[in-house]
Amino acid sequence: MRAVFMHGDHDIRVQDVPDPVLASGPSASGRDAIVRVVASCVCGSDLWGYRGVRGGGERRMGHEFVGVVEQIGDAVGKVKVGDFVIAPFYVCCGECANCRNGVSTSCLNGGWWGSEVKDEGYADAGQGERVRVPLADGTLVVVPGGEPDPALVPGLLTLSDVMCTGHHAAVSGGVRQGSTVAVVGDGAVGLSAIIAARRLGATRIVAMSRHESRQRLAREFGATDVVPERGDEGIARLKEMFGGIGPDVVLECVGTKESMDQALRSARPGGQVGFVGVPAGGPELPVQQMFSTNVGVRGGVAPVRGYIEELLPEVLDGRIQPGRVFDVELPLSEAAEAYAAMDERRAVKVLLRP
Amino acid sequence: MRAVFMHGDHDIRVQDVPDPVLASGPSASGRDAIVRVVASCVCGSDLWGYRGVRGGGERRMGHEFVGVVEQIGDAVGKVKVGDFVIAPFYVCCGECANCRNGVSTSCLNGGWWGSEVKDEGYADAGQGERVRVPLADGTLVVVPGGEPDPALVPGLLTLSDVMCTGHHAAVSGGVRQGSTVAVVGDGAVGLSAIIAARRLGATRIVAMSRHESRQRLAREFGATDVVPERGDEGIARLKEMFGGIGPDVVLECVGTKESMDQALRSARPGGQVGFVGVPAGGPELPVQQMFSTNVGVRGGVAPVRGYIEELLPEVLDGRIQPGRVFDVELPLSEAAEAYAAMDERRAVKVLLRP
Repeated sequence: MRAVFMHGDHDIRVQDVPDPVLASGPSASGRDAIVRVVASCVCGSDLWGYRGVRGGGERRMGHEFVGVVEQIGDAVGKVKVGDFVIAPFYVCCGECANCRNGVSTSCLNGGWWGSEVKDEGYADAGQGERVRVPLADGTLVVVPGGEPDPALVPGLLTLSDVMCTGHHAAVSGGVRQGSTVAVVGDGAVGLSAIIAARRLGATRIVAMSRHESRQRLAREFGATDVVPERGDEGIARLKEMFGGIGPDVVLECVGTKESMDQALRSARPGGQVGFVGVPAGGPELPVQQMFSTNVGVRGGVAPVRGYIEELLPEVLDGRIQPGRVFDVELPLSEAAEAYAAMDERRAVKVLLRP
Repeated sequence: MRAVFMHGDHDIRVQDVPDPVLASGPSASGRDAIVRVVASCVCGSDLWGYRGVRGGGERRMGHEFVGVVEQIGDAVGKVKVGDFVIAPFYVCCGECANCRNGVSTSCLNGGWWGSEVKDEGYADAGQGERVRVPLADGTLVVVPGGEPDPALVPGLLTLSDVMCTGHHAAVSGGVRQGSTVAVVGDGAVGLSAIIAARRLGATRIVAMSRHESRQRLAREFGATDVVPERGDEGIARLKEMFGGIGPDVVLECVGTKESMDQALRSARPGGQVGFVGVPAGGPELPVQQMFSTNVGVRGGVAPVRGYIEELLPEVLDGRIQPGRVFDVELPLSEAAEAYAAMDERRAVKVLLRP
């Protein structure tokens, strides 16, 4: 089968690899499954490696996919052959103390796509034709009703990561009925955070965006205002819009020093920053500033597994349409172009079909 | 009258100053009051200046006091002459957007004891015989029933700062029914945080303390466990006590690099640090670690004005006894010894009677 590899800075290749097989032998837990990938995609966080910001080296790529279960191990009970499933962007058991606390990203038995999972062997990465999924019952969410309408696939795929990550920003920021919210970042996660903030009852949602097409989508997703300014000017605009003090909640969906600074200085005293942008090498957070303003910071790598079931019905019935963040679709064989399009901001998010 | 001054590193002096008078003239707002101080005290945060950790220079000291109203300005309506009042550790209007949001420490019209308050003139510091209180209606809380039993004065005085600050740690940390909590810091604020955590329903409260007398008081206030270890050993003990992952909430009540690190690394994934220790020059918070663990950080300078009314009835009827954090009482004339006793940890907290 074919799978996507990153070889280093701006070097993406589609290569042949052996088809995955269920683990066997005396040490095999029987808790794995083989999933035929129906759709996967490129994540904004993949670009950090692509741009050489983070350590590269040859590795298999992709942590978001949906597909159909082809085989299951002896100990798999919830997931069945033929099920259409959504994979969160990590592997988790669903049973340990952290999973039970809703923090399945810190699963004591789990791990990451494209790397070894403790006691369970290698988990294939998602940008490929098939994936061996360790801990299948804990990890995969079955979409009820079998293979869905193809038009729904993009939306279901966003539940692997971006939609649920935007939701995590909003939950971590404490968005609730009547909240005023600003969203820093107009990528797929930022746009998803707008959907999430509206779902949770925010009455005013400001999209911080300078790109016309993204501004338009932001408004369609529920943004009530758009602020193109950044830095001090952006902060001044927000303060002006919200009684001289700023919005209740700021959702940080980028991960740079500038975006976190923008978020922290934009929230009103006593407000909260919900952050989900993967920190690109810092910065450290200014504790004295947080102390003086009582602005809290909460968030991190989103425990999406626990959110998928909550959001799935709304994707299936069209109440939310996060699949619209995909503005380019390519065959897996053109993965290099998919990365380039996102890197050059020609695309918000690219969907790959094997 | 006499008032306490800090002249620099380990140099505290009691000096004569003019009696305060209500502001007069065309620019006076008439919103001030003169309060005769019944009791004031030394704060752990005063020691940062005393030890030369923070910029010193000659200044009047004290931001916690209770007393009796002797005079009021023309525009004061809620506070009356003869009222026994509690002053929060800052001045606030009670009317601006931040005060209405419960973040009166960020009052748009307020300020700090011992310094100029915008449009309202100088606010005397609390360690003295009398204080001119700007914005008296917004700032002062009247104790119902007139001058209280002298035995209650220490408890009422803790509502100026430490009891409400400990409460803010617990609120900011999200302590609720069933929470597991560790408290870093066994000073007056840490001990108050134990009272607060118990009030809010924590079922297990670990006091991190190496001092026998403070351990004893911690247990009497509601700590279920005591851990004397610090650093990696302390973190390992906490993880072991709480299912291998740590407590839900850690209350940081010190303000050093070591205590914040201890707190951040002790909380379970997805947990929260409620912090109220005045940051002594850093550190900045490790955003990558917070991202990976989903441990949130929230807190800061405690908006105690909003908490006093909630906690006051429980102090008056003895349900909570935070006044027990005062283990030394001295006359104002011995303020230098009060600072020395706290600096040398011979006292948890010293009460001063003019």
